[in-house]
Amino acid sequence: MSILEANTALRSLLDQHISMLAEKEHISAETIRAGIENGTMVLLGNPSHGNVLPTLVGQPAGVKVNANIGTSPLKNSVACEMRKLQVAEQAGADTVMDLSIAGDLDAIRREMLSQTRLPLGTVPMYSVAQRYLDADRDPAEMDPEELFEEIEKQAGQGVDFITVHCGLTRRGAELATDGSRLLGIVSRGGSILARWMLRNNKENPLLTGFDRLIDICRRHNVTFSLGDGLRPGAGHDAGDAAQYEEVMVLGQLAKRALAAGAQCMIEGPGHVPFNQVRSQIQTIKRMTNNAPLYVLGPLTIDSCPGYDHIAGAIGGAIAVEAGVDFLCYLTPAEHLTLPTMDDVHAGVVASRIAAQAGEVALGRAAALEREEGISRARKDLDWDAMKKYALDAPKIDERRGEHKDEEECAMCGKFCAVKMLREDPMGKI
Amino acid sequence: MSILEANTALRSLLDQHISMLAEKEHISAETIRAGIENGTMVLLGNPSHGNVLPTLVGQPAGVKVNANIGTSPLKNSVACEMRKLQVAEQAGADTVMDLSIAGDLDAIRREMLSQTRLPLGTVPMYSVAQRYLDADRDPAEMDPEELFEEIEKQAGQGVDFITVHCGLTRRGAELATDGSRLLGIVSRGGSILARWMLRNNKENPLLTGFDRLIDICRRHNVTFSLGDGLRPGAGHDAGDAAQYEEVMVLGQLAKRALAAGAQCMIEGPGHVPFNQVRSQIQTIKRMTNNAPLYVLGPLTIDSCPGYDHIAGAIGGAIAVEAGVDFLCYLTPAEHLTLPTMDDVHAGVVASRIAAQAGEVALGRAAALEREEGISRARKDLDWDAMKKYALDAPKIDERRGEHKDEEECAMCGKFCAVKMLREDPMGKI
Repeated sequence: MSILEANTALRSLLDQHISMLAEKEHISAETIRAGIENGTMVLLGNPSHGNVLPTLVGQPAGVKVNANIGTSPLKNSVACEMRKLQVAEQAGADTVMDLSIAGDLDAIRREMLSQTRLPLGTVPMYSVAQRYLDADRDPAEMDPEELFEEIEKQAGQGVDFITVHCGLTRRGAELATDGSRLLGIVSRGGSILARWMLRNNKENPLLTGFDRLIDICRRHNVTFSLGDGLRPGAGHDAGDAAQYEEVMVLGQLAKRALAAGAQCMIEGPGHVPFNQVRSQIQTIKRMTNNAPLYVLGPLTIDSCPGYDHIAGAIGGAIAVEAGVDFLCYLTPAEHLTLPTMDDVHAGVVASRIAAQAGEVALGRAAALEREEGISRARKDLDWDAMKKYALDAPKIDERRGEHKDEEECAMCGKFCAVKMLREDPMGKI
Repeated sequence: MSILEANTALRSLLDQHISMLAEKEHISAETIRAGIENGTMVLLGNPSHGNVLPTLVGQPAGVKVNANIGTSPLKNSVACEMRKLQVAEQAGADTVMDLSIAGDLDAIRREMLSQTRLPLGTVPMYSVAQRYLDADRDPAEMDPEELFEEIEKQAGQGVDFITVHCGLTRRGAELATDGSRLLGIVSRGGSILARWMLRNNKENPLLTGFDRLIDICRRHNVTFSLGDGLRPGAGHDAGDAAQYEEVMVLGQLAKRALAAGAQCMIEGPGHVPFNQVRSQIQTIKRMTNNAPLYVLGPLTIDSCPGYDHIAGAIGGAIAVEAGVDFLCYLTPAEHLTLPTMDDVHAGVVASRIAAQAGEVALGRAAALEREEGISRARKDLDWDAMKKYALDAPKIDERRGEHKDEEECAMCGKFCAVKMLREDPMGKI
């Protein structure tokens, strides 16, 4: 039975929106159906998320950008996170993840679902762990049943995709903590699960209970985002055995999910030196049957805290060219603090730049059209037309300030090369 | 006669500083001498620039970063440009170019030379063109003798490297303006020279008079930065015949300069789609005898005005891995306005990130040491050690703000994966 036969929620969503999707993505309905059937595309959208904007992830559909927002124990303002949701949308994010770990998580999630049409993702483990941490207990003591209950609840609330670290095996946890890594485990969910397994001397409950998760996800068309609990947290650790142990398992799980009617994306690194990004992406895509790949950066250097959106955009561009489908933003706040509104905006734009650079490299028509459009506008010194094609149009007037009505920019003024050439009085060139 | 025999100013500078250079660059004195002899390295430093810090450009010496500053007709404040000089130095620029095109250019240049030990570059054509523009005359009417006089004067003042568009031929100008390009000629110097040639029906005077330039540059150890007057101004134009016509000529000129005792770098693009960056860099390096290559970006997309430092960092990283030796920054102001102090800082840091990403990919020891250092510090949650290795150390406290004395960062707080794993009470991992 194909996924579109097994998953009635997905089938209904697709049937309803196929024309819109084909037009928006500049691909045929047949390409979309085939992509979903073979697991190389997913259609994000939980019917319980009222008025959700169904969103395709998987090349040749356009590369998508996700913004992570949410409260933290040290910076906990729900109003602030709701404003970040708006900022992310305005900056052009395609999806949002609520990574809140402080406050009334249920209320925050419901509010976000009601405030945005963008697909919303979560990490259900955080809600369970928060209850333990707030009670001053170790989350590694958690009862796995609580996890399944939390996932069922969030699916019912309308969450569109969930990060679950199902591929993190005991073997992987041991490999990641045998002393060969500089930074061990840096995924919050991965760290909790690894400790749970090693303490209880049991396999990962999200792995042993994967069929239960499939059942929940199929019924609600919640898309799996199979988390990379062992993603490298330093360039030094990239591409090691622990990382690939998890990738191997993720490939098997993606196949099982697809066969049983649940949609599935794969999460990827992480801290990866520039020269490894292409080989990592191609290897991960191959090992996970070309399921949509969703990466965090990749962050090409460790040494620029305050600027991880830039080091991440470098990795993101090459990752997209190598096959990545979905970029999770990094903001300038990464590794330092919770992002501000400005950080959210900067993070989304940096990821969109990476996506555009990668899609231009791939020769995607929509990306090339944007490039040609702005270049023609530049030749004409037509600032309104530039705004039509710029990734962040309001930035143009903002930066030109008092000189925004001049024909040339304030860098060159009458030295403008474009203008000098155009106005050559000899008319020769 | 080798360049070190022919160029006494260079020989004396090298003899005086060879130990410092070898130590700073982590390469042997022999490697440096051989690199300079065969033209794959240059040592920037004009003896007339008092107390100049002699700076090696050419891998395997560290990749260098240049910051462009200078007045413009619409934003003309000398005090402001002098502060930018300081900001550029503090942010870690290795060289500065004074691209002033408004005000008393001689006074500005002399002031910059007296205020900085960093090698200073200029585009002498601007001074000549400014006189014509200020008199409401077309700079394409200029007398070439004025150019040679200006270059001689600036060499005597202590300028360390000069951009001269000697490789721009009439054939190149015709190719660039035959209608096949979207954006024709976007180099200010290139645009003026092209119009001069087509109007006067003569070859480029900087090409026909190249031996006179060699003589000036050898006497003062001014390093040629052979400008790319036909660099593409849009991704659409990258890699075309006009661009490579100029590169071919630059390769011949570099050989002539080296043989006659003058040091030489090659300037490169410019707007280049991501997928062309590697092939362009490798082709240009080959055609110019592996002379040090100095690129502007490369800017991988045209469509992110306000964020060109990011699109440039993407191109810069891959360019460095492909062999580029010297990155000219792009700031967030590029294509829009003259950079502010913040823009100068952001531009230098973005280029340093690109250089670091590229050098990590190349396995350079100094770059890897920085990565490992900050990653170890992160594992220990040792914020002081992180500052030691961060590309922009002050940014860390600035962003952590009120939480800067906490052990964890304010993104995760007690959810810190590193801390949870380290403090595992079971002591198993």
